[in-house]
Amino acid sequence: MTNKDARTPASTQNPTETSANQEAGKSVGWHKAYVEGTRPDLRVPVRQVHLTNGQSVTLYDTSGPYTDPLVDTDVRRGLAPLRENWITARGDTEEYAGRPVRPEDDGIKHTAPRGGLRNLDAVFPGRPRLPRRGRAGQAVTQLAYARRGEITPEMEFVALRENVSPEVVREEIAAGRAVLPANVNHPETEPMIIGKRFLVKVNANIGNSAVTSSIEEEVEKMTWATRWGADTVMDLSTGRNIHTTREWVLRNSPVPIGTVPLYQALEKVDGRAEELTWEIYKDTVIEQAEQGVDYMTVHAGVRLAYVPLTAHRKTGIVSRGGSIMAAWCLAHHKESFLYENFEELCEILAAYDVTYSLGDGLRPGSIADANDEAQFAELRTLGELNTIAKRFHVQTMVEGPGHVPMHKIKENIDLQQEICDEAPFYTLGPLTTDVAPAYDHITSGIGAAMIAWWGTAMLCYVTPKEHLGLPNRDDVKTGVITYKIAAHAADLAKGHPGAQEWDDALSDARFEFRWEDQFNLALDPDTAREFHDETLPAEPAKTAHFCSMCGPKFCSMKISRSITEQFGGDSDATPEEIEAGMLEKSKEFAASGNRVYLPLAD
Amino acid sequence: MTNKDARTPASTQNPTETSANQEAGKSVGWHKAYVEGTRPDLRVPVRQVHLTNGQSVTLYDTSGPYTDPLVDTDVRRGLAPLRENWITARGDTEEYAGRPVRPEDDGIKHTAPRGGLRNLDAVFPGRPRLPRRGRAGQAVTQLAYARRGEITPEMEFVALRENVSPEVVREEIAAGRAVLPANVNHPETEPMIIGKRFLVKVNANIGNSAVTSSIEEEVEKMTWATRWGADTVMDLSTGRNIHTTREWVLRNSPVPIGTVPLYQALEKVDGRAEELTWEIYKDTVIEQAEQGVDYMTVHAGVRLAYVPLTAHRKTGIVSRGGSIMAAWCLAHHKESFLYENFEELCEILAAYDVTYSLGDGLRPGSIADANDEAQFAELRTLGELNTIAKRFHVQTMVEGPGHVPMHKIKENIDLQQEICDEAPFYTLGPLTTDVAPAYDHITSGIGAAMIAWWGTAMLCYVTPKEHLGLPNRDDVKTGVITYKIAAHAADLAKGHPGAQEWDDALSDARFEFRWEDQFNLALDPDTAREFHDETLPAEPAKTAHFCSMCGPKFCSMKISRSITEQFGGDSDATPEEIEAGMLEKSKEFAASGNRVYLPLAD
Repeated sequence: MTNKDARTPASTQNPTETSANQEAGKSVGWHKAYVEGTRPDLRVPVRQVHLTNGQSVTLYDTSGPYTDPLVDTDVRRGLAPLRENWITARGDTEEYAGRPVRPEDDGIKHTAPRGGLRNLDAVFPGRPRLPRRGRAGQAVTQLAYARRGEITPEMEFVALRENVSPEVVREEIAAGRAVLPANVNHPETEPMIIGKRFLVKVNANIGNSAVTSSIEEEVEKMTWATRWGADTVMDLSTGRNIHTTREWVLRNSPVPIGTVPLYQALEKVDGRAEELTWEIYKDTVIEQAEQGVDYMTVHAGVRLAYVPLTAHRKTGIVSRGGSIMAAWCLAHHKESFLYENFEELCEILAAYDVTYSLGDGLRPGSIADANDEAQFAELRTLGELNTIAKRFHVQTMVEGPGHVPMHKIKENIDLQQEICDEAPFYTLGPLTTDVAPAYDHITSGIGAAMIAWWGTAMLCYVTPKEHLGLPNRDDVKTGVITYKIAAHAADLAKGHPGAQEWDDALSDARFEFRWEDQFNLALDPDTAREFHDETLPAEPAKTAHFCSMCGPKFCSMKISRSITEQFGGDSDATPEEIEAGMLEKSKEFAASGNRVYLPLAD
Repeated sequence: MTNKDARTPASTQNPTETSANQEAGKSVGWHKAYVEGTRPDLRVPVRQVHLTNGQSVTLYDTSGPYTDPLVDTDVRRGLAPLRENWITARGDTEEYAGRPVRPEDDGIKHTAPRGGLRNLDAVFPGRPRLPRRGRAGQAVTQLAYARRGEITPEMEFVALRENVSPEVVREEIAAGRAVLPANVNHPETEPMIIGKRFLVKVNANIGNSAVTSSIEEEVEKMTWATRWGADTVMDLSTGRNIHTTREWVLRNSPVPIGTVPLYQALEKVDGRAEELTWEIYKDTVIEQAEQGVDYMTVHAGVRLAYVPLTAHRKTGIVSRGGSIMAAWCLAHHKESFLYENFEELCEILAAYDVTYSLGDGLRPGSIADANDEAQFAELRTLGELNTIAKRFHVQTMVEGPGHVPMHKIKENIDLQQEICDEAPFYTLGPLTTDVAPAYDHITSGIGAAMIAWWGTAMLCYVTPKEHLGLPNRDDVKTGVITYKIAAHAADLAKGHPGAQEWDDALSDARFEFRWEDQFNLALDPDTAREFHDETLPAEPAKTAHFCSMCGPKFCSMKISRSITEQFGGDSDATPEEIEAGMLEKSKEFAASGNRVYLPLAD
């Protein structure tokens, strides 16, 4: 099947497909296809939507092998290690025994009988594996390769996904304007890129938090979020089974996984912030790097001197990591151990190609605290840390707020880009007002769309439960869809090549009353179809040349189409020629006594 | 009760209240109160929220007498005519016999036995009334009064509502930068103002459309929409019982009601656009003006010459009114009868103080058509019409798009303000992408917040059912809440006096773990409380100093509060003094072996 009109960045080539997929696809109006690269093991997944007019639209796909009927997935076995050969072929990494997993990694108290409280069934049963890291002193990061002028298979993969040349990908990574999070211990990931020259990305958070949920639930949350378009997933689990849950998530995740190591480190000292040490933190980072975590949030910008700046704030410090580090500085009246040991941390991350996400521990938690001294003081420090990380060839992005009124949003992205040498900005919202708990996916979706238009590379989603409770399955979906809207609205505003073709394809379907095509092209086909059927359930209604909003008598699209068909349509007639034709047509029209609107009975 | 801290524009004075309201209020955390003006019959309703710390917050209230336990409302009797004495006291209007109501006003076919198909039960049973209009040739509009330097009770009412001086209100109306929609035949309305110097307003649409709903349902939809904050309601009913439905809605509406007379006129010619005449349209406008419609959408900007400009569009003409007028021009190949008779229409509207909402019949219906020649050609014509309307002292606002990508939004408001001498802009969204049917309240909420920040005075809401079906009760609520968020986010960005105090009050409650206050201050208290209880149902959780997201061990607010309390808090200590104090405190802290986080068991 050729791709006649609408194309998104992934569709420079005609995706290959299989008859089995065809069958699978046809029945649902779309199917999984692959764009092939320069080597047989480089196949970029896409979502191909089949239109009733015989054309097709190819969309970016984050859902992984789970939506390919030809791939047999098993959560207990994990996904195939797509990148393994690419990593080993580079010959700059080595397997090693690795750090032994300890009961405390899963939050088991030291006093407990070894493994006594451990849920043995939960141990990931998949193929045994040794961790891998860069050979002595080697930086095995995509940044290092890009700087050396190498175009890795990972870079070619994202180039096909984004519909740009591999060289553009390499340049953006080499310049530090984009990151390609890909830990050498997470070969299951399908490469993706985060940078302002590419499609705006969306992150979804999962995590059992204090109220524990099962390991299977967390894996299910991850596949559910990526099914709706999450580009990366952060596992913010706390409490029990952190290590084991993360293992299951990583082995089954087709997208990069991010974490906040500080959370697990705090568990290891029973939540006593003052008992945290660099050694415990470092050990936790290595534990997670060996598992395959692709990027880590590090709150090294919360310095002792900045804590007093938050004393007069309306909502103080609202970042968990920020408050933990502030508590530590407070207890010891010492400079942050993360700031003090940042260079050593860089060496560790470089050995696994773990990407930094420099956390904004002092982000504002209310409209009143937006863009204040504490926030910008930390941002300037994040700028210094970004410079250091780049020296160690560690890929780096920078996190941003938070709660910010619309008129103060642009200052955030502009300052961050200036201070951090255009390192990718990764923002939470921002929420544009504090007065709508239960609707913060919307208060923040507004700010997210704006800041992404102005240059933010990735948006961390917010669900309706923000400030109130733990998101359930529906909340996760609502959060992801809302943020995909914000991201796509920004892609349109930035004029990203091909972005508008998706809108055009849907609008064509709408104008031509191709209801099924509208549903299949929608960000959420299920809900669109459900809402339509609520008012006009009958099958015929899906081919009717009007909809339930105005009914046949009042359908503006209908009369409008008659104008288009009679005067111009696809022809090249000029407005003047059309105007002349109208006089003629209007006579025929009057003569025929033709009705523009059909009576309701019709 | 005094208003100690947080205040919104309505709270310059301490609202009066009654013990009965107190009781009613206390039980729900808020109650209806009134701000008194310079005369006993001038009482501005406000929503007073009682905080557990003894303070109170006063919020703008659109819900009408329905939320006042002391007022006995009856949908069959209608609301008390609040403005009647103000109108009669001016002595410039007179009652008259008025136009007889005909079966066809309710969509009854001419051939049908008189009233044969009429649902007699539906006739509004409330007090009989004669229509009122300005005495011979008199313009009885708020614009005319403002230009004469008169501050009407209506102007004083909105001044108290907006927390500005009556003179500012008069000036903005006199300059045509704001409108105060108040038909002399709708004395039940509580005056409100639409203009960029005031709070951004939200309109909600109701209407039985082709799929008929009962008259009671439409009245219920109106009270439901205003309960959640709709500032005006447009009755877009088509089909049967249009006249009767409108009568019920008007007699029970505390907010201005808007309509599109063209819809009813089309019903009178059985949906045959080409059979429309100026006489039928004019008769319909008078019919609706006598009932009390406060503002009317008039698509007089859709001129014959512009129709060809839409022929090559992706989605042609998506406005119902626009397509009807295009069809008429098409059928007769004549200039629009609305454009040709615009001055006579101005005379009619001036006699009842009906406000113009100049419709954008050629607004774009897709991202591809945004800001095109057809749209801006019509806008320039709306500029001419605005000038004419002002000559007749008719209050005028101008409607705007539609579907517009973020980077093309500002051009819309800037052009409209320039071309229409800063007449209030009233926009639908705009939707910032076409790809999310079922989520267009969000795709448009993003555009709405932005265009309102840049100067749009009123936003027409969009519900999740846009493009798909008819909104139900939940959709109406979701649409209104989403647009109240967009409007308030814009009020914050515009720095509207007092706007941020609402956010500050809620953020204070959040930081101090006053859960009940957070709920009561929320735009939607019910849903906020419900979401919280889903995760932590127990009553104690509502006083807990942590929430379900992070649990007690990880509560950032908690540690942050300890910092605030120990170092600074409400004191005037400088960061330096606080920093010095920290060293001291940290010693005590260490000595006491105090834990920053309580173990989960606590």
